[in-house]
Amino acid sequence: MRIEDEGEQGMSGLLSVVGTGPGARDLVTPRARKVLEEADVIVGYRTYLDLVRDFFRADQEIVSSQMMQEIDRCRRALEIGDSGRRVALVCGGDPGIYAMAGLVFELAREMKSRCRIDIIPGIAALNSCAAILGAPLMHDFAAISLSDLMTPWEVIERRLEAAAAADFVVVLYNPKSKKRTTQIVRAREILLGHRSPETPVGIVTGATREHETVQLTTLAGMLDCDITMQSTVIIGNSTTYTWQEKMITPRGYRDKYGLA
Amino acid sequence: MRIEDEGEQGMSGLLSVVGTGPGARDLVTPRARKVLEEADVIVGYRTYLDLVRDFFRADQEIVSSQMMQEIDRCRRALEIGDSGRRVALVCGGDPGIYAMAGLVFELAREMKSRCRIDIIPGIAALNSCAAILGAPLMHDFAAISLSDLMTPWEVIERRLEAAAAADFVVVLYNPKSKKRTTQIVRAREILLGHRSPETPVGIVTGATREHETVQLTTLAGMLDCDITMQSTVIIGNSTTYTWQEKMITPRGYRDKYGLA
Repeated sequence: MRIEDEGEQGMSGLLSVVGTGPGARDLVTPRARKVLEEADVIVGYRTYLDLVRDFFRADQEIVSSQMMQEIDRCRRALEIGDSGRRVALVCGGDPGIYAMAGLVFELAREMKSRCRIDIIPGIAALNSCAAILGAPLMHDFAAISLSDLMTPWEVIERRLEAAAAADFVVVLYNPKSKKRTTQIVRAREILLGHRSPETPVGIVTGATREHETVQLTTLAGMLDCDITMQSTVIIGNSTTYTWQEKMITPRGYRDKYGLA
Repeated sequence: MRIEDEGEQGMSGLLSVVGTGPGARDLVTPRARKVLEEADVIVGYRTYLDLVRDFFRADQEIVSSQMMQEIDRCRRALEIGDSGRRVALVCGGDPGIYAMAGLVFELAREMKSRCRIDIIPGIAALNSCAAILGAPLMHDFAAISLSDLMTPWEVIERRLEAAAAADFVVVLYNPKSKKRTTQIVRAREILLGHRSPETPVGIVTGATREHETVQLTTLAGMLDCDITMQSTVIIGNSTTYTWQEKMITPRGYRDKYGLA
């Protein structure tokens, strides 16, 4: 099946990069669901596909991959789009935040792809984890990935230092994996250079999924918590406090600065 | 009508702070919709209520306000929750990002409120604007509000400086209003102290609504664009580029640094 506007502006198919949110079915937007239902082909990492599999039609072609690398998955999706079909590339969270939207455009440029590319936003880890923790992101915040696989560690450290010094709430993505265990130790050290050991820290693992765990701790205590690749870590700013097991960053700085 | 777990842990009603996303109906999550459908009372600013009004039941009490201040609205919602009812406080975007979740907790603490408070995440401006622009948030980013109504301008300037120097992609909330026109000029100046005038800048106004406008420009040209209180401004990092009217931040720094 070919899409209606085939040929318009010389483009052929349609690749939708679909954010399916953190995992809970009721956080998949109707737009994402509709795109999944209408696609000719669905491509994705098996774990994410399994979370939305009941939205699929029986006659859809599913390209599920356990081992295929991200790059191969995106290339494959683009090739299918270029062949004139409607393809949905499934992405947990929001494809626009540290996820596949960028890689798709990078590869499309390289491959001189001509299919239309639509990004369907989703509830990202930072949205869902903030909601679970209470209200930590009420003021300026910085999102920083601790993965140094494709970013030199010096760049990451410079950002941690800058965010810590300027009192941003800090959201850490990819805080730790089996192989990367020292980055979170160093990140905490940098934060402690500018903030009290009592600064609230929230750690959400597997947000909205069956195995979801929430840990509310402090900069002092955070290394004693379980942190995995499925965790998002939110470190408060100098005004963040906890109340009834919730983490709250007040929206104003007036009180702190004694302003009217 | 009183909710089932009334009295449990000494709590009475339930206040759900509901993120209804950027405006498009099909970006309202099923969870948000269900909470709206099941509430006894719905409280909100009229503009946001109008966007989701067809989810309401005929017998629901609607506390719609054009002029009532945010603080009064949150207090009212908490009072209704404390009276044992189910109340939904409607919030555009994501209540957890620069929005009402925090104020609700702050006031609940002050009022010694005993109702349960649930935050229902939504598609925030940064998620929807990034999707519309392409893939600008593929790497570390800082969200900064330029509103100095409750934050001293020195704090904001320090954050702009830190984010600019450490090469964060920068998302500006509340970039400009009729009364606040100089902040965006100064913000651009600070960014230009660290980034090329050719750095891509994306401006999305009224994302996903009928009057949505998208402007793709550069740090050099951004002040010639229309920027309002409904705009979100995303400024690329040193590696961000544009391709086919999309703004793309590559995910890795290896190329730039000549690493393998």
